[in-house]
Amino acid sequence: MGDSSADWAGISWTFLAEVRRRSPLVQCITNFVSMDLMANTLLAAGASPAMLHSLQELPDFTPNADALCVNVGTLTADWLPAMKLAAELAVRSGRPWVLDPVAAGASGFRLNACRALVGLKPTVIRGNGSEIIALANASVGSTKGVDSSHDSKDAVEAAKSLAQASEAIVAVSGAVDIITDGKRVVGASNGVPMMQNITATGCSVTALISAFVAVDPSRAFEATASALSIFGIAGEIGMEMAKGPASLRMHLIDSLYGLDQAAVLSFVKISSI
Amino acid sequence: MGDSSADWAGISWTFLAEVRRRSPLVQCITNFVSMDLMANTLLAAGASPAMLHSLQELPDFTPNADALCVNVGTLTADWLPAMKLAAELAVRSGRPWVLDPVAAGASGFRLNACRALVGLKPTVIRGNGSEIIALANASVGSTKGVDSSHDSKDAVEAAKSLAQASEAIVAVSGAVDIITDGKRVVGASNGVPMMQNITATGCSVTALISAFVAVDPSRAFEATASALSIFGIAGEIGMEMAKGPASLRMHLIDSLYGLDQAAVLSFVKISSI
Amino acid sequence: MGDSSADWAGISWTFLAEVRRRSPLVQCITNFVSMDLMANTLLAAGASPAMLHSLQELPDFTPNADALCVNVGTLTADWLPAMKLAAELAVRSGRPWVLDPVAAGASGFRLNACRALVGLKPTVIRGNGSEIIALANASVGSTKGVDSSHDSKDAVEAAKSLAQASEAIVAVSGAVDIITDGKRVVGASNGVPMMQNITATGCSVTALISAFVAVDPSRAFEATASALSIFGIAGEIGMEMAKGPASLRMHLIDSLYGLDQAAVLSFVKISSI
Repeated sequence: MGDSSADWAGISWTFLAEVRRRSPLVQCITNFVSMDLMANTLLAAGASPAMLHSLQELPDFTPNADALCVNVGTLTADWLPAMKLAAELAVRSGRPWVLDPVAAGASGFRLNACRALVGLKPTVIRGNGSEIIALANASVGSTKGVDSSHDSKDAVEAAKSLAQASEAIVAVSGAVDIITDGKRVVGASNGVPMMQNITATGCSVTALISAFVAVDPSRAFEATASALSIFGIAGEIGMEMAKGPASLRMHLIDSLYGLDQAAVLSFVKISSI
Repeated sequence: MGDSSADWAGISWTFLAEVRRRSPLVQCITNFVSMDLMANTLLAAGASPAMLHSLQELPDFTPNADALCVNVGTLTADWLPAMKLAAELAVRSGRPWVLDPVAAGASGFRLNACRALVGLKPTVIRGNGSEIIALANASVGSTKGVDSSHDSKDAVEAAKSLAQASEAIVAVSGAVDIITDGKRVVGASNGVPMMQNITATGCSVTALISAFVAVDPSRAFEATASALSIFGIAGEIGMEMAKGPASLRMHLIDSLYGLDQAAVLSFVKISSI
Repeated sequence: MGDSSADWAGISWTFLAEVRRRSPLVQCITNFVSMDLMANTLLAAGASPAMLHSLQELPDFTPNADALCVNVGTLTADWLPAMKLAAELAVRSGRPWVLDPVAAGASGFRLNACRALVGLKPTVIRGNGSEIIALANASVGSTKGVDSSHDSKDAVEAAKSLAQASEAIVAVSGAVDIITDGKRVVGASNGVPMMQNITATGCSVTALISAFVAVDPSRAFEATASALSIFGIAGEIGMEMAKGPASLRMHLIDSLYGLDQAAVLSFVKISSI
C-alpha cells in the first residue's frame, strides 16, 4: 500500500469493484431506525444484505455470510445474546465482523454491552468521536444521544488506544474520518456536512465497511478507509443535486449505485496523518 | 376470465379501482426492514395499512381487517405465535391472508416456521424462486440470504406442487412473475430489473396482493396476477424518471398513486404459460 | 399571547428558531414504521433524536433528554413497561413528554395501555379524531386501523374533555388541527391532504411537538399549535414540487430543513375557534 491519495483512490475503486462483482452476503443485526437505509446502501453498492437476528437461526446462517455487521442503536437486553452469538460464530468461521457502538456512553447498560462486544474480536469498530472516546475510556456520559459532541480529531488518541487494546481497526467519523490500526493513522476527508442531518448515515457506512471487508478480510484497514471515502464521495455527488437532507439521502444512494471509476479516482481524499 | 392480455388489463384495472374505492384495511405482520415501504405502498394504492402484531389485540383486531399479510423477514421465536394466531383468526373470520416466506431456506428454524404457516391455509403465498423451491422441497440451503439464486421460471414446477399441496395461489417473483393455482399458470412480465436493488419491493408487492385479494377474495388468482402486474407497471413508469434505486423507489410509489386506467390498460403484460 | 395569526406566526417562528439554536435531545419510544421518518423530521428541524427504549438504560438516559415522545403504534406487552418508566422518569425530572395514542380504540389491550399512559401526566397528547374520541370515551371500535374515520372538528368536545381530565394539551389532527388546553381552543389550518397518504406523518408531527415543547415547556399549548402549523407549512411548500406521496415526503423534509422566517410569517394559519 502506498501513501498517496492516488494509491488510495485505486485501492478504493478495487474494493467497490470487487463488492459489485462478488455481491458479498452481509448479515446485519442492527437498530430499527437504520434497517431501511442500511439495506438500501448495501444493495446500491452491489452487496446482498440480510437482516437476520434470531438466536435459533444464527448457527445455520452466520457461518455462510461473508461478513457480519452489529449495531447497538436500539439495543435491548433480549437482542444482546444474538449479537454476541453471531459475533462468536463469525470469528469461529473466519468471517470478518464490524461493530457500530451507537451512543456507547449513553448508559452503563449500553457501555457494558459494547465493551463485551469489543471483547469478541471485531475486525473493525466504527463510531463517532464521543462513542470511541466512551469505549476507550469506559466512561458513561460523554455522548449526547446518538450525535457526537466531540470532533473526530480529538478522538485520534482514543482510537489508537482502543485499536491497540482490541486489535481491531478503529474508525472515527467526523469532518475528517480517522482510521487506525493502532499504529498507522489515515484521514478520509470525503463527505458533506448535511449527511449529519440524515438519520442512519453512520450506521449505513458501517454496513458498507462490512461489505468492503467481506471481499478482502486481510486488508481491513484499507477496506475501512475505502468504504468511508466511497460513501463520502456518494454524498458529495449527491449534494450537487440535493435541496435538503431528504433529497440528499436519495441522491446519495443513487450516486453510490452509479459511481464510476473516473469519479472514484478523482474524488478519493485519503492521506496519512 | 379470458386469457388475453386485454382481458387481464381490464381485470387488473378493476382490482386497483376497487382498492381505491373501498380502501380495505390490511393488517401487516411484517419485518422491520419493510414496514415503511410496505405501508407507503398500501397507502399509495388507496388501501389502509395497519401494522399490529401483539398477541393481546389480535382477537379484537384481526377479524375486522379486510386482509392479513404475514412476512417472516426478521423472524424471531417471539413473533411466531402472533403470526400463527393472526392467520388462524383470519381464516376463522373468512378473511384472506397472504404469506411472504422471506429467505425460507436460510435456516431450519425459518423453514419450519414457514411450513407451519403454510399449514394455516394462506390464500396466497408469494416468494422468489429460491424461497418457493425451499418451501416446496422443504430444504434448507437453497437461499442466499433474502435474494434469489434461482430464476422464477425454474420455480414453476415447485410453485405448482406447493399450490396443490397448500391449496393456496402461489406466486414466484422474477424477471417474469409466475402465478399458479396448481393447474393454471400465468406469467406477469411487468417491472424493471432495478427494482431488485431496492429493499422491500418484494415485501411490498405481497402487501399489495393482500389489498387486491381483500376486495375480492373469491378471485385470489386474478388478484395476485393483477397486483404483481400493477406494481411492475408503477416500476416501469417510475423508471422513466429514475436515476438510481433510491429515486426509482420514490417514483414507483408516486406512479402507483397516480396510475390511471389508460396506463394500466396499455401496460399490463399477463399471459398464460 | 395574542389571538391573531400574525401573533401566532411570530410565536411559531420563535419555537422553530429555538429548536435550531438549542438542538434539544428528544428521546423517542415509537413504533417500527415511523422510526425513520420521525428521526429525519427531528433532524430536519434541528433537534437531536434518540431512539432508546430499553428498560435498563432509561434511568441513565431519560432524565438527560430534553423531551420524551411515546408512540404506541406497534405496541406489544413487552414495550409497555419501558414506555411507562420513561414517562415517569420524564415527569420526575421535570421534562415534558408527549403521547401519540395510535389506533387507541383498535383493541381493549391498546385502549387500556393508552389510558394508563394518559394517567402518567403527558404534557401533550396528539392523535386523530378517532383516537382522541376513543380515549375520551374509553371506547373500543371507533378506530378503523390507524386512519381516522372522524373529522377533527367532531372531536373538539372529546379533546376538551380529555384535556380537562388529563391536564394535558390535547391536539387533534385533521383538515383543521385542533389544539386545546381544556378551555382555550385554536385551530391550525396548514398542511395538504396528500400528507395522509404518507405513513408516519402523524407520528412525526408528534415528535416535532416534542422538540418544540422541549425548548419551552411552560408554553406547551403554543408549542403544540406552532409545531402542527410548521409541519403543515413544510407540507404546503413541499406540495408545490411533489408528484405524489413519496416525492411529497422528500420535499416536506427538505422544506422543513430550509424553512425561513419569511415563509413562516406569511404561511402560519392559526386562529381561535
